[in-house]
Amino acid sequence: MKLSKKSQLCTLSPMRKFTPYAMAAEAAGKKIYKLNIGQPDIETPPEFFDAVRGFSQKVLAYANSQGTEQMLQTVVDYYKRIGVEYDKKDILITTGGSEALQILFLSIMDEGSEVIIPEPFYSNYNTFIRAAGGVIRPMPTIAEEDYNYAKPEALEALINENTRAIAIINPHNPTGNVLTEQELRAIADVAKKHDLYLICDEVYREFVYDADKSPCAGSLRDMDDNVVVIDSVSKRFSACGARIGMLISRNKALMAEALKFCQGRLCTTTLEQVGASALYSVGPEYFDKVREEYRRRRDICYRKLTAIPGVVCAKPMGAFYVMAKLPIDDADEFMKFMLTEFEDHGETVMCAPAGGFYATPGRGINEIRIAYVLKEKDLERALDLLAMGIEAYNKRK
Amino acid sequence: MKLSKKSQLCTLSPMRKFTPYAMAAEAAGKKIYKLNIGQPDIETPPEFFDAVRGFSQKVLAYANSQGTEQMLQTVVDYYKRIGVEYDKKDILITTGGSEALQILFLSIMDEGSEVIIPEPFYSNYNTFIRAAGGVIRPMPTIAEEDYNYAKPEALEALINENTRAIAIINPHNPTGNVLTEQELRAIADVAKKHDLYLICDEVYREFVYDADKSPCAGSLRDMDDNVVVIDSVSKRFSACGARIGMLISRNKALMAEALKFCQGRLCTTTLEQVGASALYSVGPEYFDKVREEYRRRRDICYRKLTAIPGVVCAKPMGAFYVMAKLPIDDADEFMKFMLTEFEDHGETVMCAPAGGFYATPGRGINEIRIAYVLKEKDLERALDLLAMGIEAYNKRK
Repeated sequence: MKLSKKSQLCTLSPMRKFTPYAMAAEAAGKKIYKLNIGQPDIETPPEFFDAVRGFSQKVLAYANSQGTEQMLQTVVDYYKRIGVEYDKKDILITTGGSEALQILFLSIMDEGSEVIIPEPFYSNYNTFIRAAGGVIRPMPTIAEEDYNYAKPEALEALINENTRAIAIINPHNPTGNVLTEQELRAIADVAKKHDLYLICDEVYREFVYDADKSPCAGSLRDMDDNVVVIDSVSKRFSACGARIGMLISRNKALMAEALKFCQGRLCTTTLEQVGASALYSVGPEYFDKVREEYRRRRDICYRKLTAIPGVVCAKPMGAFYVMAKLPIDDADEFMKFMLTEFEDHGETVMCAPAGGFYATPGRGINEIRIAYVLKEKDLERALDLLAMGIEAYNKRK
Repeated sequence: MKLSKKSQLCTLSPMRKFTPYAMAAEAAGKKIYKLNIGQPDIETPPEFFDAVRGFSQKVLAYANSQGTEQMLQTVVDYYKRIGVEYDKKDILITTGGSEALQILFLSIMDEGSEVIIPEPFYSNYNTFIRAAGGVIRPMPTIAEEDYNYAKPEALEALINENTRAIAIINPHNPTGNVLTEQELRAIADVAKKHDLYLICDEVYREFVYDADKSPCAGSLRDMDDNVVVIDSVSKRFSACGARIGMLISRNKALMAEALKFCQGRLCTTTLEQVGASALYSVGPEYFDKVREEYRRRRDICYRKLTAIPGVVCAKPMGAFYVMAKLPIDDADEFMKFMLTEFEDHGETVMCAPAGGFYATPGRGINEIRIAYVLKEKDLERALDLLAMGIEAYNKRK
């Protein structure tokens, strides 16, 4: 029984591959602080559940493949509020930002096509791009430079005849880097000059801590055919389980191709679109409050991390992750140790080993990604456990 | 801006490509009887909505990538009730049967790999297989033989070094063919002999009208590594909008590959899994009632269709579709005519032109697929409109 080459080139998710160890530890009574996955403990706005409970149709029918009229209009109105003009036909509602990326790459990649992505990057890009037959061409960035990737020459040097797109995540998962308008423009100019798609994953748009806002690539109106925006309600409204995302572009030919895949899978969940649409009715005070909460968590996280001897990290400017280089030999081994051997008063901490966030072999081996998605007190305790764990791990060797 | 070759080999869905015409007709006040899509008017069991309304967690969090424990156990219990032993680890909960097929083909197909599929077939297989770089090798079947495809020699003749799987839909969409146990065994033996996957799409399992039941491929215990079952709540419980499906196999290596794609897209909707799990609490009387309803509709549909001069069709044995060869030149043109020009007292009917259900060029051009998903009275009226429409269309020429 043959398996596909492309699936064999994929790996289990670094955020999820240790789940079996975590489940075993929990079954044995251990408490685990989970910083491995971007699952916030922030409450989902009750507007979601109210809307879902109010659904009164007797038949839970398919929605339109593009998305419900209501959801599409909600997205148009949201973008209008942030100053970006989109039309309903520029939008496809997808099963999370994940499906938006899958459909996008299926629509633009052939066997061997390349996408340039600043590294480290959200590891599931590897799966989505491999599934479409493509390859990631990584652009290395480093903590010492705040993971900055707004370097037109470095990007340009990676372009070859197989390059189809430059993909950026802004604000960035996992580094927390946030582009200025000028930086976005500089990267965009490279894509424009070489006739490449500029894929901007902006699912963390509202979460910036040291700037007014994160620029939206949809405002680059001289590049309507190049720009593709990926969006989602998952992080914005702490509604990860709703699986509602968006593929957004004014490139008509691209959207026509993408619609084929949307029709193939019929539609996105009807009821979740009802709930997701209601989420957008929350006012700016919601984001102010959540942003403030994440800012405090970021500060704690950064302070506690940099206090651990030998840890290297850059202060994140946005999103809710921080990358950290640890004074250990192997983050996979370390994480296994933390879940199977280590404990302090019956507690431990789980992070994502960062090897999977890199495409360059050997990079990220002693790094982890921390999602600061827990309450301050829990976060403090989790980082204390991390510090204790590093010491115990190194003593053990 | 390049588009992918594989997306260009895909087409819009024959069930959905005329939606823009339908929307325009409806906007102009026309009533359309929609037989184009398998969207039943049967009410979704209220257990679904009750469970969803009872969801009391404050954070709508990600589920496990494999599916929630509750949903996995529900599926195990359901299969046990129909006499098939599966374990939770043999099951992945997916976003509809559609995603189960997508993930399966990504896991087993390379560029140029082939899947043998009896033709006509559910058209979206084309999109799923193309997306994975594969090709459909059709096995033609005909109305005059009740679309029977249990022909081991004919199947065997299509096998070559690129063949990875035989995929069957049982009960069959769009033909309504239902396999006997002996027929399933005969097909399975071909897959076994040639070490191929046997993909059995059994989403219409409960809907058989002239036999006791439709055999489940999961009971072929000498072929644990070959058999993959695709399942879904969409049709079974008239819950199409829930997008809950299942990829089921005892082949551990396959399931390990499939899990990579499941982890890549994080999870299936949390809330819909809560609702879908509750669906399985309905008793056998639910299926008896629904089956009887569809049986009546099937009978009406077949009677009215065969009364139209020049129509060729086979009486469906299961599912809720019937293929019909019409005395017209081109079903695409005919459908456009029905939506844009034809009307009787402000009403018309919409079916799916069947060209997209065939992979052999030229086949299906004057055929349509009818989904008998409307109440008897509506179905009668819809088929009268079809008869009138055929006459009007041919007079117009």
